[in-house]
Amino acid sequence: MTLNGKKSPGLIADWETLQRIFIRPEDEACRQTLVKYMEQILFGLHDFLNSNVGVTEPISLKELTREFRDTLISPNPEKKLESVISDIIDQIAPRAVNVASPYFVGHMTSAIPFFMVHLKAIVAALNQNVIKLETSKVLSVLEKQVLAKIHRLIFNKSEGFYQTHVQSVDTSLGAFTTGGTTANITAMWLARNRFFDAISKEQGVEEHGMVAAMQARGLERAVILVSKRGHFSLKKAGGLLGIGNSNVLPMDVDSGHRVDVKKLETTIRELKAHGRTGIIALVGIAGTTETGTVDPLDDLADLCQEHDIHFHVDAAWGGPVLLSERYAHRLKGIERADSVTMDGHKQFYMPMTCGMVYFRDPKAMDLVAYHSNYVNRQGSVDLGIKSLEGSREANALILDSSLKIMGSRGYALMIDHGIETAKLFAAEIERRDGFQIITQPELNILTYRVVPPSLAARLKTADLGSREAINDVLDQLNTHVQRTQREAGNSFVSRTRLNLGPLDKKGVVVLRSVIMNPMTTIKILNEILDEQEGIAADFKQAGDVSI
Amino acid sequence: MTLNGKKSPGLIADWETLQRIFIRPEDEACRQTLVKYMEQILFGLHDFLNSNVGVTEPISLKELTREFRDTLISPNPEKKLESVISDIIDQIAPRAVNVASPYFVGHMTSAIPFFMVHLKAIVAALNQNVIKLETSKVLSVLEKQVLAKIHRLIFNKSEGFYQTHVQSVDTSLGAFTTGGTTANITAMWLARNRFFDAISKEQGVEEHGMVAAMQARGLERAVILVSKRGHFSLKKAGGLLGIGNSNVLPMDVDSGHRVDVKKLETTIRELKAHGRTGIIALVGIAGTTETGTVDPLDDLADLCQEHDIHFHVDAAWGGPVLLSERYAHRLKGIERADSVTMDGHKQFYMPMTCGMVYFRDPKAMDLVAYHSNYVNRQGSVDLGIKSLEGSREANALILDSSLKIMGSRGYALMIDHGIETAKLFAAEIERRDGFQIITQPELNILTYRVVPPSLAARLKTADLGSREAINDVLDQLNTHVQRTQREAGNSFVSRTRLNLGPLDKKGVVVLRSVIMNPMTTIKILNEILDEQEGIAADFKQAGDVSI
Repeated sequence: MTLNGKKSPGLIADWETLQRIFIRPEDEACRQTLVKYMEQILFGLHDFLNSNVGVTEPISLKELTREFRDTLISPNPEKKLESVISDIIDQIAPRAVNVASPYFVGHMTSAIPFFMVHLKAIVAALNQNVIKLETSKVLSVLEKQVLAKIHRLIFNKSEGFYQTHVQSVDTSLGAFTTGGTTANITAMWLARNRFFDAISKEQGVEEHGMVAAMQARGLERAVILVSKRGHFSLKKAGGLLGIGNSNVLPMDVDSGHRVDVKKLETTIRELKAHGRTGIIALVGIAGTTETGTVDPLDDLADLCQEHDIHFHVDAAWGGPVLLSERYAHRLKGIERADSVTMDGHKQFYMPMTCGMVYFRDPKAMDLVAYHSNYVNRQGSVDLGIKSLEGSREANALILDSSLKIMGSRGYALMIDHGIETAKLFAAEIERRDGFQIITQPELNILTYRVVPPSLAARLKTADLGSREAINDVLDQLNTHVQRTQREAGNSFVSRTRLNLGPLDKKGVVVLRSVIMNPMTTIKILNEILDEQEGIAADFKQAGDVSI
Repeated sequence: MTLNGKKSPGLIADWETLQRIFIRPEDEACRQTLVKYMEQILFGLHDFLNSNVGVTEPISLKELTREFRDTLISPNPEKKLESVISDIIDQIAPRAVNVASPYFVGHMTSAIPFFMVHLKAIVAALNQNVIKLETSKVLSVLEKQVLAKIHRLIFNKSEGFYQTHVQSVDTSLGAFTTGGTTANITAMWLARNRFFDAISKEQGVEEHGMVAAMQARGLERAVILVSKRGHFSLKKAGGLLGIGNSNVLPMDVDSGHRVDVKKLETTIRELKAHGRTGIIALVGIAGTTETGTVDPLDDLADLCQEHDIHFHVDAAWGGPVLLSERYAHRLKGIERADSVTMDGHKQFYMPMTCGMVYFRDPKAMDLVAYHSNYVNRQGSVDLGIKSLEGSREANALILDSSLKIMGSRGYALMIDHGIETAKLFAAEIERRDGFQIITQPELNILTYRVVPPSLAARLKTADLGSREAINDVLDQLNTHVQRTQREAGNSFVSRTRLNLGPLDKKGVVVLRSVIMNPMTTIKILNEILDEQEGIAADFKQAGDVSI
């Protein structure tokens, strides 16, 4: 350990102080202090967040990093808890991103109900580890119940089915994960094992690896099929699992950014005709990250059934739409999936981070079971047996409580608000001269771009070469608009690159808006468009472009 | 969505209520209520934990699950926040496991300083997502600083090195993960890619998969070497990564449960002689899960250097011992590792869950980089580029604050207390007649078993067959003691199965004790032994055993 000169006189680490921070506070004065700290957290932070509707202070990254360069750990305490909390409120919070602002409509991170902070504090205070019953007890039991509730929301099996499995020691309806990424990885992991084990358990891929498994099946190649709009975690899964990320094949989409089922079918037939290529899984997306589009899940289920392919639905974003009586039908077909990914910290409005993965077949997770001597013994109910992750906090308690506090109808109000506000926003974008809608909101995500009227007119008549040149200028303009708006710190939309149609290979820069904060109104969205118009007008270059 | 009969009259989901839970509380009455709830959490839970030193109520799993079988989500709200919190305090907490009890010495989950609850609440209130700068800003910058602090604690490079890398956009000193499991998986993932890329980048394993990569290197088999005491996440990593978990080869240990370097060296030479087997990584353990043993890291580093093998150290448990001036030397050699796993929620005393993985080479993580169009663009500082996980909460803020509040010396006091109390405990076990120490505490973990004096005497003179029969009886006895004590709910030690020596292939059941709670004293440990003696005495069968 390195000594340095940061000692704060008066602050020393001693045994008595240490023990005190582990003892529950006994006297009233001490309790008062702790409550005062928590008040600071609840209201000091909230006051900041309220008085700063802007999403972030305009401070450059370079400037920001200047104060975060010291890499020595101080031997003695540097600060008391009180100063640490004050510093976070005064120094850290103003330089964080106000994701709770209704003007923050650029990413899938948003405001959460304030009671989520209470629930997270409870989870931390109990500090259970649901990897095993011995460190979680009732929380493991509760987790199984919550998993069954969401499984039922997705797959809607019979009451008898759930009575059999809800608390079964032998079966699993799903698992809590860190997030959508590890949920997708878990699903692909299981699909890979299922694919290879179906032929040769002796040369099972989990035990003997990809080379042995491929040889046993006489294969040269194994692939995963997913729309090119799929989340990048699926590509990562391919790399991680030894399949190779180039074997996660990006499937073409139609003009509505849904996977093109006809082309997909052709691809499957071609791959099968080749004979030495195996299809591990086909992934449908219920709410793509960039456009919020839902793939035609029923058609995909048909294809998977016909060709005996594992059908995974990545509903990390769209899953909770099932709670809305009005819009649940948009996910029709999800009940035929073999596995489904959902995110807690997205449209279940939980704090960072919580994901989930569900399996239609309660025995499916046996394919990824691991045991050890000291925990997760064979036949135990330890939830860590079938889980990519090891130690896990009891996030199920947060979801369970939230479902009780809001009911599915409470959630539905928020889902419906997002979808309907996004529709109004799209209409406003279409109404305005200086904008072009790129993708209509099927759920609550839409994309558009700034197109000054002069360029819009030229685009209509331009030949291919000129169109590309104009689009290059528009790319610069939209990148500038997004950056300038973000740096000004009043509001935030994100940007990505999308193909304008199946024939456009290069794609254009688009602005992306995600409407999930119930405080985000059409009035606020209009202000955001106004600001973008202003920035675009100042961007002389765009107006002067000569092609 | 399914309707059911659970409607609570008066509780309905309406838009006004919903908006209110997103608005920061404005009036004083509302604030008071929120503070009252937080008081309930801070003290209601704590009072329970204080008045129930027992680790858990004696309630059977079957009984426990009875109330958790309803799998329908209620359409309307079932409860108000207030009732949810009360229910958790009255119904859930008493059936959870009191991991904070000083009598809970069975697992690596323990008491945490109470300020951790405050810090976790802050993280939830800010709700940043450090996957990308646009949803975390200063928290990403802070994370890079904390990573550099711990990197420096491990690798102790020059000030110039850290000034170059602490805030570098291009390099990464490590990553926060969910826990030790995903940290180990990340390290093995990177080691796999490094191994294959060294020969043929064109057939890189990440892009083209295990089959292509093995062919390109002309290999039949790729293995990972780790002591048989290694954590089961390493085996899981082998399965997940397409290497095959049977290719994670369990290496023999010496009588001190450290990996046998001589045998390991022989194995490496044999594998190399075979010519068609590649060694992806060698893993040393700094604090095995079962016995707390530290492998001879310097010897392992020598071996890895000689044979050009990736050297990973799993210091999930032992890592923070580096903070102790008195005991840091026990991890000598860790600074020569290529990668190191650490856990935040273990001996950094953070709440569930937080892990970390560190790499000596700041460019190493390029081998696991993933980009996408809307986040994690090439050249950005988005932390999600090089990370197994996707969305992540800002756990770095908790570790950073805790290091400031306690200083390394504060942590050292706890580390030293654990190791020294474990020594006292071992001495007491040796002093008592009815017990046998199995593994001495190198750090703060030890194992032992109950051996009634009559059987101890017989064991000494028995031949191999009789010894096995006696050990079978002792296995039953120790399983009974551990279960009975756990179910009585006053204290908790865990159990596992260990080989008594290199020649004992079958192993025996042992009791395992982890001393990390600073409130755990030798007096408490004596009470635990007393209780075990009592249970053993009642277990007539053991006394009557006739062989």
